[in-house]
Amino acid sequence: MARIDINCDMGESYGNFKIGKDSAIFPYITSCNIACGFHGGDPLHIEKTIKGALAYDVQIGAHPSYPDLAGFGRRNMQIPEEELRALVKYQISAIKGMVESLGGRLQYVKPHGALYNTAAHEAREAMAIIKAIQEVDDSLYLMGLAGSPIQELAAEQQIPFVAEAFADRKYMKDGRLRSRSAIGAVIESAEEAAQQVVDIVLQQRVETYEGEYWPLEAQSICIHGDNPAAVAVLQTIDQKLEQEKITKVGFTHG
Amino acid sequence: MARIDINCDMGESYGNFKIGKDSAIFPYITSCNIACGFHGGDPLHIEKTIKGALAYDVQIGAHPSYPDLAGFGRRNMQIPEEELRALVKYQISAIKGMVESLGGRLQYVKPHGALYNTAAHEAREAMAIIKAIQEVDDSLYLMGLAGSPIQELAAEQQIPFVAEAFADRKYMKDGRLRSRSAIGAVIESAEEAAQQVVDIVLQQRVETYEGEYWPLEAQSICIHGDNPAAVAVLQTIDQKLEQEKITKVGFTHG
Amino acid sequence: MARIDINCDMGESYGNFKIGKDSAIFPYITSCNIACGFHGGDPLHIEKTIKGALAYDVQIGAHPSYPDLAGFGRRNMQIPEEELRALVKYQISAIKGMVESLGGRLQYVKPHGALYNTAAHEAREAMAIIKAIQEVDDSLYLMGLAGSPIQELAAEQQIPFVAEAFADRKYMKDGRLRSRSAIGAVIESAEEAAQQVVDIVLQQRVETYEGEYWPLEAQSICIHGDNPAAVAVLQTIDQKLEQEKITKVGFTHG
Amino acid sequence: MARIDINCDMGESYGNFKIGKDSAIFPYITSCNIACGFHGGDPLHIEKTIKGALAYDVQIGAHPSYPDLAGFGRRNMQIPEEELRALVKYQISAIKGMVESLGGRLQYVKPHGALYNTAAHEAREAMAIIKAIQEVDDSLYLMGLAGSPIQELAAEQQIPFVAEAFADRKYMKDGRLRSRSAIGAVIESAEEAAQQVVDIVLQQRVETYEGEYWPLEAQSICIHGDNPAAVAVLQTIDQKLEQEKITKVGFTHG
Repeated sequence: MARIDINCDMGESYGNFKIGKDSAIFPYITSCNIACGFHGGDPLHIEKTIKGALAYDVQIGAHPSYPDLAGFGRRNMQIPEEELRALVKYQISAIKGMVESLGGRLQYVKPHGALYNTAAHEAREAMAIIKAIQEVDDSLYLMGLAGSPIQELAAEQQIPFVAEAFADRKYMKDGRLRSRSAIGAVIESAEEAAQQVVDIVLQQRVETYEGEYWPLEAQSICIHGDNPAAVAVLQTIDQKLEQEKITKVGFTHG
Repeated sequence: MARIDINCDMGESYGNFKIGKDSAIFPYITSCNIACGFHGGDPLHIEKTIKGALAYDVQIGAHPSYPDLAGFGRRNMQIPEEELRALVKYQISAIKGMVESLGGRLQYVKPHGALYNTAAHEAREAMAIIKAIQEVDDSLYLMGLAGSPIQELAAEQQIPFVAEAFADRKYMKDGRLRSRSAIGAVIESAEEAAQQVVDIVLQQRVETYEGEYWPLEAQSICIHGDNPAAVAVLQTIDQKLEQEKITKVGFTHG
Repeated sequence: MARIDINCDMGESYGNFKIGKDSAIFPYITSCNIACGFHGGDPLHIEKTIKGALAYDVQIGAHPSYPDLAGFGRRNMQIPEEELRALVKYQISAIKGMVESLGGRLQYVKPHGALYNTAAHEAREAMAIIKAIQEVDDSLYLMGLAGSPIQELAAEQQIPFVAEAFADRKYMKDGRLRSRSAIGAVIESAEEAAQQVVDIVLQQRVETYEGEYWPLEAQSICIHGDNPAAVAVLQTIDQKLEQEKITKVGFTHG
Repeated sequence: MARIDINCDMGESYGNFKIGKDSAIFPYITSCNIACGFHGGDPLHIEKTIKGALAYDVQIGAHPSYPDLAGFGRRNMQIPEEELRALVKYQISAIKGMVESLGGRLQYVKPHGALYNTAAHEAREAMAIIKAIQEVDDSLYLMGLAGSPIQELAAEQQIPFVAEAFADRKYMKDGRLRSRSAIGAVIESAEEAAQQVVDIVLQQRVETYEGEYWPLEAQSICIHGDNPAAVAVLQTIDQKLEQEKITKVGFTHG
């Protein structure tokens, strides 16, 4: 039977600065990527998010970032590999300890923002993350862009990998995401986003911006919680999944 | 046979900003308090310090602080107890994970700077730290000011406590440390500092600024690594300990 | 003819972290307190806010804070007077230069959050701010709590002072604001808030929480922009001011 | 008569984290680049540095950086041009106001670290800096790498430019600086560094790593204050300048 994991970035609020509607989103997702304090996420919000994840039985991932609160981790920074490895390790460790202190278990690591995009394609950044994972706990999954070079690197390094695709981002005919600055980068229609999820799950492909199909195998679908329509999109996806008899379940559940 | 632990703050460098002479100090100490990133200590320096501690078989403690890099954690901040607990937990978790990733074991927690001083006397701050420890790992020791209220609180809460005294700080006749801003607060003579250590270990007392004796039981002695004479002080203490047949050993060693 | 200035904290967004509805509030206010980057406010949001103020012909004030982004400047920090003076001066200078670069003029300084409250009553913090103002530009007004000790200090130091009262905060019979953590601290009704403004302007008094009157002379009224009902409150105040023939105008306008 | 300006990065200490030996260097330089708080430099150290510059009659420049304290501004960050312009403007404004508050005058802007290197060659970063200068005060000089594209851009934009060369860095035969990570990048010998200064001043050229000459016109020479031998290098340069009858004087002095 077909199945899929739905993940969302969570816990990104920072003190008085609130981001996202985490409590409204938890009921619809099966994995949450928790900010580690470097692009968002203060310890109190991190802890609240972990409690939310445990209450909703949602899988927990660490969501490490470049150290850039002002840029929300969305700007590339040229950090030496050794330092980047240590930065990621620190962040994973902080989240792991907090999760375990609440009786939970950290399941995976998904890099955030610019680090996600760079690591998807650049071996240096990818290896920094992979080494950090290996050093902390090599049973942790790495979640990354489906079909990108980091997926191969993870396989070579024997790190379990979760291939991720996007419900609401348009793909190009070469399989890359359409740049956020370009028209048509974001799928506005909840219906269309839900259809993209179904296409990925049942047909292992997406319809690209140019109208062609691109083969895409993914075990998890990312939803953007900062989209004002996030809950509506999630509800539409839920209906569609039910119609198509696709089970929504965390990727670690056999 | 008499014994004592010697601890020092370590790993406080932050990127290009260097603090302390950690590599020169490691050979002389038995416990190191590792900065967690909030008053100093970036992930790469933290990791380097952990490796140093493991190489020298020195006990490792987390050294959490108020979030105040500009003030080096030396300024009081009024942080609500719940938030402070989470801040401390985040910091302990980060260090614990990094220590374990290198095959080591986190043994204790010693609050830093203003948090140390406030928590020694204020139940709110003390409880925030104690709860953080309980939630992460209740076998961790709490290191704090010998004879202060936090020692009683730790006992009540069944957290193992390591009472700490200072080699190079002058005590007042009420048992408090002489304020750093007052003349005579710091013991400049290595000889005199070493004598204070011996008095504490063998006679459980210090000679106060006023010339009286104050009873003081401590299992660990703090050395200030940012003192330019730190290594000379440590060498003098070593000689004195040897003369007096006092064993220098980590407090966890039976 | 009776007149009053209406001020609001603005420009507190920080990168991707958005605070307040500045563009909706500008039409209703006559002074804006612009965050300087220490509790909120990145350079791009600061500049955008200055442009808004110039477009709406709103007076511009610098809104310096303790350096505490995570705490939004709402936590007391024990900073030595000299350092605090320098911190405030840096912040005023940054805003002043940016305002002048856009052809505007910085008119006043209003400390933010915990610094505002502490400086209202403590001479050390008040003097740090006053000296910073004197050193940068002694024609700048200092805006502070009406009737508090900082008002007297400003007079002694010959710094022009703008006494400020609150529309939506309840006063106690000793003239202090009711603590935010207490029930009834915030006036929820727009009507009641507007009436408090009118009472202050026309009768120089407020009705306290205990039901007595407290004499209060103020040249400016603070509105909280992070109140979801801020615009509704401002509209109600506008109507009330019109009914009572009170002119809403910046305090520097003769 | 031949003349040259000698500049050095100053004021980079941050709270308890000390960098450089500013007080030992001031007697030997004619221009100082003052950190603005983004890679180093807290307001109190900034102010102390300005006072030093005024006491020694040294020209004052703002030394803006990418916002990266942990990386000391030495890592490239991909910041949109508009945001970078605002970041630079904020920093220039802060320093300008503090300089003027002490009766001095800001004379120039020299970008720091990675921003310096990137802006030397990339129009986007160069224009962000040039626009920031134009908006704050278009009589400010821009100091940058001699012979690099930013020099042409400044000329086109009618911003006065100070071409800078390095005393202790080796040049390559294409005129670029030898990468710091390569052997021979830094000139260790004070004698050799002083000779490079003289060659630049009197012959408008440097001997490259490959042994050829590269034409180089510069009005200012940069000395690295974090070099432990900085003072010795400066003294040797002084002697050499005197022998060669070259006047050491600020570039603004006719």
